[in-house]
Amino acid sequence: MEKIPKKQKAQVITEYGLDLKFKEIDVPIPKSDEVLVHLLYSGVCHTDICFMKNSLSQYQMPLPMVAGHEGAGVVVAIGDDVKSFNIGDKVGAKMLNRICGYCENCHISGRDNKCENRVDLMVHKFGTFQQYITIAEGDTVRLPQHVDLKIAAPLVCAGVTVYKGLKETGCIAGEIVALHGASGGLGSFAIQFAKNAGFEVIAIDLGEEKGKHCKNLGADHYLDASKSDLTKRIHEITNGRGPHGVVVIANDIKAFEQAFEYVRDYGTIVCLGVPDKNEFHADLMNILNRHLTIKGTILGNRTDYKEAVALLANGKIDIPVEVRGLSELGEILDRIHKGEIMGRVVLDTSK
Amino acid sequence: MEKIPKKQKAQVITEYGLDLKFKEIDVPIPKSDEVLVHLLYSGVCHTDICFMKNSLSQYQMPLPMVAGHEGAGVVVAIGDDVKSFNIGDKVGAKMLNRICGYCENCHISGRDNKCENRVDLMVHKFGTFQQYITIAEGDTVRLPQHVDLKIAAPLVCAGVTVYKGLKETGCIAGEIVALHGASGGLGSFAIQFAKNAGFEVIAIDLGEEKGKHCKNLGADHYLDASKSDLTKRIHEITNGRGPHGVVVIANDIKAFEQAFEYVRDYGTIVCLGVPDKNEFHADLMNILNRHLTIKGTILGNRTDYKEAVALLANGKIDIPVEVRGLSELGEILDRIHKGEIMGRVVLDTSK
Amino acid sequence: MEKIPKKQKAQVITEYGLDLKFKEIDVPIPKSDEVLVHLLYSGVCHTDICFMKNSLSQYQMPLPMVAGHEGAGVVVAIGDDVKSFNIGDKVGAKMLNRICGYCENCHISGRDNKCENRVDLMVHKFGTFQQYITIAEGDTVRLPQHVDLKIAAPLVCAGVTVYKGLKETGCIAGEIVALHGASGGLGSFAIQFAKNAGFEVIAIDLGEEKGKHCKNLGADHYLDASKSDLTKRIHEITNGRGPHGVVVIANDIKAFEQAFEYVRDYGTIVCLGVPDKNEFHADLMNILNRHLTIKGTILGNRTDYKEAVALLANGKIDIPVEVRGLSELGEILDRIHKGEIMGRVVLDTSK
Amino acid sequence: MEKIPKKQKAQVITEYGLDLKFKEIDVPIPKSDEVLVHLLYSGVCHTDICFMKNSLSQYQMPLPMVAGHEGAGVVVAIGDDVKSFNIGDKVGAKMLNRICGYCENCHISGRDNKCENRVDLMVHKFGTFQQYITIAEGDTVRLPQHVDLKIAAPLVCAGVTVYKGLKETGCIAGEIVALHGASGGLGSFAIQFAKNAGFEVIAIDLGEEKGKHCKNLGADHYLDASKSDLTKRIHEITNGRGPHGVVVIANDIKAFEQAFEYVRDYGTIVCLGVPDKNEFHADLMNILNRHLTIKGTILGNRTDYKEAVALLANGKIDIPVEVRGLSELGEILDRIHKGEIMGRVVLDTSK
Repeated sequence: MEKIPKKQKAQVITEYGLDLKFKEIDVPIPKSDEVLVHLLYSGVCHTDICFMKNSLSQYQMPLPMVAGHEGAGVVVAIGDDVKSFNIGDKVGAKMLNRICGYCENCHISGRDNKCENRVDLMVHKFGTFQQYITIAEGDTVRLPQHVDLKIAAPLVCAGVTVYKGLKETGCIAGEIVALHGASGGLGSFAIQFAKNAGFEVIAIDLGEEKGKHCKNLGADHYLDASKSDLTKRIHEITNGRGPHGVVVIANDIKAFEQAFEYVRDYGTIVCLGVPDKNEFHADLMNILNRHLTIKGTILGNRTDYKEAVALLANGKIDIPVEVRGLSELGEILDRIHKGEIMGRVVLDTSK
Repeated sequence: MEKIPKKQKAQVITEYGLDLKFKEIDVPIPKSDEVLVHLLYSGVCHTDICFMKNSLSQYQMPLPMVAGHEGAGVVVAIGDDVKSFNIGDKVGAKMLNRICGYCENCHISGRDNKCENRVDLMVHKFGTFQQYITIAEGDTVRLPQHVDLKIAAPLVCAGVTVYKGLKETGCIAGEIVALHGASGGLGSFAIQFAKNAGFEVIAIDLGEEKGKHCKNLGADHYLDASKSDLTKRIHEITNGRGPHGVVVIANDIKAFEQAFEYVRDYGTIVCLGVPDKNEFHADLMNILNRHLTIKGTILGNRTDYKEAVALLANGKIDIPVEVRGLSELGEILDRIHKGEIMGRVVLDTSK
Repeated sequence: MEKIPKKQKAQVITEYGLDLKFKEIDVPIPKSDEVLVHLLYSGVCHTDICFMKNSLSQYQMPLPMVAGHEGAGVVVAIGDDVKSFNIGDKVGAKMLNRICGYCENCHISGRDNKCENRVDLMVHKFGTFQQYITIAEGDTVRLPQHVDLKIAAPLVCAGVTVYKGLKETGCIAGEIVALHGASGGLGSFAIQFAKNAGFEVIAIDLGEEKGKHCKNLGADHYLDASKSDLTKRIHEITNGRGPHGVVVIANDIKAFEQAFEYVRDYGTIVCLGVPDKNEFHADLMNILNRHLTIKGTILGNRTDYKEAVALLANGKIDIPVEVRGLSELGEILDRIHKGEIMGRVVLDTSK
Repeated sequence: MEKIPKKQKAQVITEYGLDLKFKEIDVPIPKSDEVLVHLLYSGVCHTDICFMKNSLSQYQMPLPMVAGHEGAGVVVAIGDDVKSFNIGDKVGAKMLNRICGYCENCHISGRDNKCENRVDLMVHKFGTFQQYITIAEGDTVRLPQHVDLKIAAPLVCAGVTVYKGLKETGCIAGEIVALHGASGGLGSFAIQFAKNAGFEVIAIDLGEEKGKHCKNLGADHYLDASKSDLTKRIHEITNGRGPHGVVVIANDIKAFEQAFEYVRDYGTIVCLGVPDKNEFHADLMNILNRHLTIKGTILGNRTDYKEAVALLANGKIDIPVEVRGLSELGEILDRIHKGEIMGRVVLDTSK
C-alpha cells in the first residue's frame, strides 16, 4: 500500500491571471464518505484559463486556488463509510466533486449534472493541478484497471463533454455531424466518439495543418474555417442540405452564428465551447420554420460518464496525448491560449 | 348518403392581401387514395393572414388560392384504394395534406411532420376556407363520432401545434410552464393541455381583460406583458427561479428575447408563433452555462395527432369557440389582425 | 414547534404472522442527514401481509418488526446536515428509506428505485405502523402544504407503483388499458391515473359490486372476472383487438396468464401485484410473433415520485379512503386478506 | 442500362416442405409506386424453413411460393410515380415489402414494422429466392453504392433483427449482453453490433468449434451450452450478477427459460429466434421482484434500417459469408436444418 505524504506539489494562483506558483501544500484528508486519490495525470483545458482569469461572469473563483478539472489516478485512502472503492482502484476526478442527491435536478432522471448544491473543482475546492485530491464516493469516476490513465484524465472532462454534446444532437447512425473546433482536446475526442457512433464527420478548424490531425482521427471531411464561404463548402459535401447536427467547440461566436446558416432543416446545434464574446444574432423564423434546436450543454450526467468510460475501456476511443510535467503548466497554458495545441496536453504530476 | 354537389362556395384570393372573393368554385374529385370531405367548420388563424399577405419568406403562396388550414367535417366519398375510412366518418383536415412516406424525414421515427415532399394546404392545394376538400388517406385525421367538430377544427392545427410545443419543453408533471400569448386560439389550447399534463401555468398576454379568459381556462397565474418588469414578476411567483419551460406563441420578438431572461436554469424555450420581425439577440454564455434549449416547432407528427385528438375526445380539452359564417371571413381576419380575439373563431361553411 | 416525545405507539410483530402487539416503543433519532417525521397517516396494503407472514422468498423480514410502507406526516426535527427541509413541511415516507447514490443502479438515469444498497422499510428498518419515523433527506417525499395527507399516504406506495406501471405500458393518450384488480388501493389509483392520461380503461375485478366503485372512479368499462370468457368479453369491447396495455394488480396468477390471450398485438403486460403462486405458463411464439412485452415493476424512481405527487397536488387524482385508527390494524389486515376492501384503508396514528 | 428479361430463375415450392423446384417464372412488373430490383444475392435463414414447412401457426404461406426474405441487388426499372430511386441504385429487399401508412401502427412513431396491412414476402408475395423482385418505393432499403451486396443481403433481415433486439435490451455502453445462439447468421451480426455499441459480449452456442468463430467476431467470452451449469459459468464471469441483457436467438425453448435464471436483476430478455416448442414455464415473482423485462421482437422499423445500414456502410460490421449458387439452395437448407452453418450462406442468383 502506497504511503501517503503530508505535503504535495501543486500549481497555485493567488491572484487572477496565469501567474502560477508551483509549491508545496497540504495533502487533503478524506471525509468519511470520500476517497483520497493520488492524481497521476491531469489534463489541461482552455476552461482552466477562463477560470484563472476570472473571465466567466457565472463563476467566481475564490483565491488562492488550484485550477485543473480533469484528473486520473489511484485510490490511496478511503473514508470510513466508503463501500464501493478499494485502495489501488483506478479512478477519475471530474469537475463535479460532489452532488447533493436531494435537489430538484438530482431527483429528475438524467439531470444530476445540474445539481443545485454541487461542489465544483476550482469553485469550491482545489482542482487537479495537484498530486492528491478527495472526491465523494458517488462522484468518483470508476475506471477499469487496464485503462491508460493518460487518456482517461482528459476523458473525464473533455471527453465526456463532447460525448454528451453529440448525444444531445439526437443524431442517429448514418447522419452527418459538423464539429467546429475539431483539432483540440474536445474536438479530437468528438471526432472519435462521432465516428464510433456511425456518424459522417465534417471537421472544421483553422488552417490546413489541423486537417491532417482531424483526418488521422477519422474525420470524413476537413474544412479550413479561415477561408471564405464555409457554408457553401459544407453544402457542396452534403448535397446542398447541410449536416443534421453541429457541435460548436471553437471559442468563436461566429462559428456558432454560421451554424444557423448551414445546419440541415430540423437539425440541432449544440454549443459547448466558451465563446470569445457573448452576444449573438440569429433569425427566429429560420429556427421556427426549419424546426431547429439549439442547446447549450456542460459536462455530463453519471450515465454519460458510465458510457464514455466504457467506450474508452473497450478501445473505441483514442486521441494523441502530449505528456508534460506538472511543473511545466505555465508554458502549456500559454500554448493553449495561442490555439497551438492539437489533441490534448496531459500533466504528469510527478514531474 | 349525402349528395355531392359539383360546385361549392369558397373564399378565394387572386392577389396577395386580405381582399377575399366569396364565390363558387368546383368541388374537387378525390384520387384513388384520397377521401373527399365535406368541411363543416374551419378555424381561422393568424397564419392565414401571413400566407395571404405572402409575408413568409420560406413559403410562396401561388395565386389564386383559398387559405385556411384547420378544418373538420364528414367523409362524403372515398377513392377506390381507400380502406380505412367510410362515408359518414368524422375527420379533420390539417395543413399536411399528404406525406410521401419515402423521404429521409418520413423514415426517421417521429419526423413525419417534416416530410420533404409534402403537399401543404395553401402552398400546393386549396385550403379549408371552402366546403369540400380532398385528403390522402394516411393524412386524414380520424375523429371519434361523438367529437364536437366546432372544437375539432381548430384542434387540428392550433391545438396540435401547442400540444407538440408543450411536449418539446420536456416538462414533467409539477413543473412550471410560461405561455406567452396565452389568450388566442393557440394559447387557449395551450392552457388546457398544460393543465391536463399537471403543469403549473403562467399565462402571459396583453391587458387585464385577457387575464379573466386565461384564468377561466385554468391558468394558475396571469401576467400583463404590457406592464414593465415581466421577468421580476415571474421570478416573484417562481421563488426567483423561473419556469422550467416557456412556449412563445405571441407574434412579438421581444416575448422570445425576454424568455431567455426568466427561464429557469436548464429550461427549454419553444417558439411556435410567427414573430413580427426575424432577428433576435441573445447571450450565448447564458444558453451554454445555464444549459438552455431553444426549439422552433411547427405542426405535429402523426403520433402527436393521435394523442391530441384523444385528449379532446376524452373531454380533457375545451376552449371557447365563436362560430361565424364562412361568408364573414373578411371581418374575422380584420379582428385577428388587431389582436382582438380570445379563444378561436370557427367558420360554419354553410353560412 | 411540536414537542417530540421519547416514546410512541407502534404495531409490532415478534413472530411471523398477523399477531400484532400495539405497544410503546422508542421514538427514533435522526442521523445528521435525516429528518424525523411525525407520521399522521399510514396506508395498509396487501404487501404488508406478505411481509408479516414472511411469504416472499426474496425478502427476509427480521424480527421484531413494524410493518407499513406508505406514510405521510410532518417534519418535526432535522439532522444537522439537512438543508432542504424545514420543520413543519409535509412529507411522505416510502418503502425506500435511503438509497446509496454510488451503486450501478444509482448511476444509471431512472434506475434509482433499484439501488443495490438501499435501506427498505420492513427489511432494514421499522415501517410506518408507528407514529414517528426517520428518513434520509434525499428519500423524503416532498408534499405541497395543501395536500390531504390521508390520500398522500397511500399515494407514496400504491399510487406511485401503479403510476409507474402505467408509464411502463408505453401507452399513449387514446389507447386502451386493462386493469386487472381495479377496485383495491392500487387499482383505484390506477383508474384515476389512467383516465388522467387519456387512456380508455377496462377495469376488471371480482363481482358486480366492485363495478360501481370502478365506474365511479372513471373506468369506461367494468368486467367481472368471476364470470367466464373474459377474453371474449374484452374482445367485444375492443373491436376484437384487445387493449394496448395491461396492468395486472390482482394477486392471481391466472389474471396474468389471461393477459397474454387478450392483449393487443405488440402490447405490453405489466405485472406489479404479488401473485398467489409463482409459476406461470405462456406461449413464447405468442410473445415473439405478436411483439409482446412483459414487465415486472416495483415502486417508482425519484422522477416518478415527483410526477405522481404533482398530479395529486394538482387535483387530478382522488380515491375513496376509509380512515381507521392505528390500533385497529389487526381487523383491517383481516379484511384485506379476504379481499373485501375497495379503495384504501388509511390509519390515523393518533387513534 | 441493364436489359430486363421476361423470364427469370426461381426456387419454387408447390407443397409444404423442402422440396424445391428450380425453374423459370415470370419477371414481375413494378406498379407505379414500385421499383423493380435485380436481386444479386439472397441470404438463407432458418425462418425460410419454418415458412416452407408451414410450421408457424401465425402465418399461412399460400402455394405455390418462392421463399427468401433478405435480398440485395440493383434497381433496374422504376414505376412512373417513383421519385427517390434511380436505375443503378443499390438496394435491399426486406420481408416487409410494403406498409400501408394509414393503420394504427403506421401512425405511432417507431411501430411501422408492425403495420397491420403490410405486404410480406412469403405470405403475400414471392420472396428473394428469385432473380427479380418488385418493392414499394417507401420500403426499398437504400444502400450506399460502395456497400458489398453479399453482406448487405443478410443484413436486411438477420442484421436488422438483431440490431433491433440489442436496442430493445436497453443496455448502454459498458453493460454485459449474453447472446444465446451466437454463431449463426443472426448471432454473428449480433456479436458485431454488440461490440460496436461498447457492450461486453458473452457468446453462447453448442460445441467448442463455434467458440472460435464467436471470438474471431469479437465476443469477450464463449460458453458451450451443451455442457452443464450454464448459469453458474455465466455468474462466474459476471461477478455473480449476470448480464444486463440477453438476446435469445437459438431455436431452443430452454435457452429462453435459462435466461430467467442468469439475467441480472432489472435486466431485459429479448427473444427473437423461433423456438422449437412454444410453451415455457417461468416464475412470476422472479420477474416482478427482480424488475425483469421480457420482449419478443420481429424485424425492425424504418429507423432501425437506416441505422443498421449506416453501421454496415461505415465499416463497423462484418461477418463471414459463404457464397453459393441459387441452384444449390436445397443443400443449404439441409445444412441449416442440422445447425451446421456458422455465419451466413448467401446465394448468388446468377448461379
